Amino acid sequence: MKITSRLPVEAYVEGILSGDRVILSRAITLVESTLPQDQFLAENVVEKILPYSGKSIRIGITGVPGVGKSTFIEGFGKLLVEKGYKLAVLTIDPSSQKSHGSILGDKTRMEKLSSDKRAYIRPSPAGVSLGGVSAKTREAMLLCEAAGFNIILIETVGVGQSEIAVKGMVDFFLLLMLAGAGDELQGIKKGIIEMCDALVINKADGENITAAKKAKREYTNALHLFPVKENGWNPKVLTCSAIDQIGLSEIWQMIEGFVDQMKRINYLDINRSNQLENWLHDHIGYLLKSSFYENEEIKSSLTKNLSEIKAGKKSPIGLARELVEAFIDGISRK
Amino acid sequence: MKITSRLPVEAYVEGILSGDRVILSRAITLVESTLPQDQFLAENVVEKILPYSGKSIRIGITGVPGVGKSTFIEGFGKLLVEKGYKLAVLTIDPSSQKSHGSILGDKTRMEKLSSDKRAYIRPSPAGVSLGGVSAKTREAMLLCEAAGFNIILIETVGVGQSEIAVKGMVDFFLLLMLAGAGDELQGIKKGIIEMCDALVINKADGENITAAKKAKREYTNALHLFPVKENGWNPKVLTCSAIDQIGLSEIWQMIEGFVDQMKRINYLDINRSNQLENWLHDHIGYLLKSSFYENEEIKSSLTKNLSEIKAGKKSPIGLARELVEAFIDGISRK
Repeated sequence: MKITSRLPVEAYVEGILSGDRVILSRAITLVESTLPQDQFLAENVVEKILPYSGKSIRIGITGVPGVGKSTFIEGFGKLLVEKGYKLAVLTIDPSSQKSHGSILGDKTRMEKLSSDKRAYIRPSPAGVSLGGVSAKTREAMLLCEAAGFNIILIETVGVGQSEIAVKGMVDFFLLLMLAGAGDELQGIKKGIIEMCDALVINKADGENITAAKKAKREYTNALHLFPVKENGWNPKVLTCSAIDQIGLSEIWQMIEGFVDQMKRINYLDINRSNQLENWLHDHIGYLLKSSFYENEEIKSSLTKNLSEIKAGKKSPIGLARELVEAFIDGISRK
Repeated sequence: MKITSRLPVEAYVEGILSGDRVILSRAITLVESTLPQDQFLAENVVEKILPYSGKSIRIGITGVPGVGKSTFIEGFGKLLVEKGYKLAVLTIDPSSQKSHGSILGDKTRMEKLSSDKRAYIRPSPAGVSLGGVSAKTREAMLLCEAAGFNIILIETVGVGQSEIAVKGMVDFFLLLMLAGAGDELQGIKKGIIEMCDALVINKADGENITAAKKAKREYTNALHLFPVKENGWNPKVLTCSAIDQIGLSEIWQMIEGFVDQMKRINYLDINRSNQLENWLHDHIGYLLKSSFYENEEIKSSLTKNLSEIKAGKKSPIGLARELVEAFIDGISRK
């Protein structure tokens, strides 16, 4: 692992609050670091900027590969920065480890937006576990907010787990789809549709327009079958052509309408409060497991017993209890 | 909570090994119990019967409500018991808490099979959390195996999380579908299709036959787009009419073919070994979290700090670290 120089906590905090993008990027790198010595520093930075976070609209965008997420974000992002918003784009790509490295990929994909000074694009590093990526993305989002960005787009690939993580950190969740591609190939599951606040059919241009309109009708009907959401919002179905910049303003108007409606019933805050509580429990689980699995006695005991477990000679629940008890006893002997 | 009398460990173990269904049922009730005093006893019983478990073919069956899972299990189960197999059916229904109580529901649904002495049907109790249900189902499966059942069917509703849990405890995973219902309504996601060893289109009878054949072709084509599985098995697409008992023998032949093929490459054992290892880690996570959240100091500290977390005044990662450290310190002070 590459050794990089670190700054004192205050330098990160001041840099971020003054909107210094170099410092912001270094702070996100710090947050993403898996080096144990970085974690305490990262935590400190996040705690310090927390009071300055929260002043953005957080939008999750998902859809399977090929649906045109990058083109959509490029077009939609352009619209937003031209309206005067400060835009940060964060991406989670759980598949990037297996396929190509996503960092260059994403930057190349969103060429115009990434060269636009009014936008900040930050892809997740490849090779971090999904749970890890999403925890880091949440912190990166807060850092971006503290740095003054007032719209955050979080992009993820529509394959299941990562949507749940992103849904847990955004205000508005948008699913991009294509018309007529067949749902089994689009990989869309009921669960993801249920999580969405809007379903946008992309590539509604040229020969696709008729199919897109038809799909819009069908999905509108299908959405009626879902139970009413707690916040009273009826998920909308829209069409757009990101490449031709058609329909993007309507999408932004819809999101503004959502935000207004939610603010009236205080739901934005309620939702964020619940997200903070869930974050607490996620992090407790993470810390408990990491202190357990980093314990040297546990490690060697696990190694020693694993073959018996895998051979079915020893009970997993028995060993689990033994190890957890040994972990707790080990701590108490210190 | 109802107080029920408990037996000594050996009485459960002997009863199960002799195939006593009353004792088996009481042991599953014990395993499902959330009473702290039952957990140690339950764990002991499971550990004792573990060496006698494993001698069954474990089949997971999923599909959204309305696809005909009960009718399928009733018909398929009848076929299996008539071939001389001893069949146990376990069901996981994460939605049962919200809708109707599943216990009577399931028994009524599989009326013929539940009155057949050669089969044993055991629904999960309503109101247990999903993680809990699936852990208990795994243990119930092992108890059934030790009691001599040599085919276990585990039924779950196709809504996402529970499939992953069931996939983690079975040898063969079967997805029931309907022809022409529209995938968005069937709620089938790519992830579930990827997990499946077979996709069975049910209700292929009367006017549905043409649509079922068409769907079979389409799904067969679609499955070719998925990457080859580690075990070399090509998932099959079949049609059946559970209500008319058509196509069920072919499904059983396919499963037998799967088992033969997997045994030749030792994959049944490899898969079960990996499942045991995952079970260990799941249970470690469960025990760590439960000892944490049951701790009185943690409980009161959580209650005290939660409003500040929810108001965004305190950092979730900071409090998580504080609490986990306090938990570990608290233990060491004892």
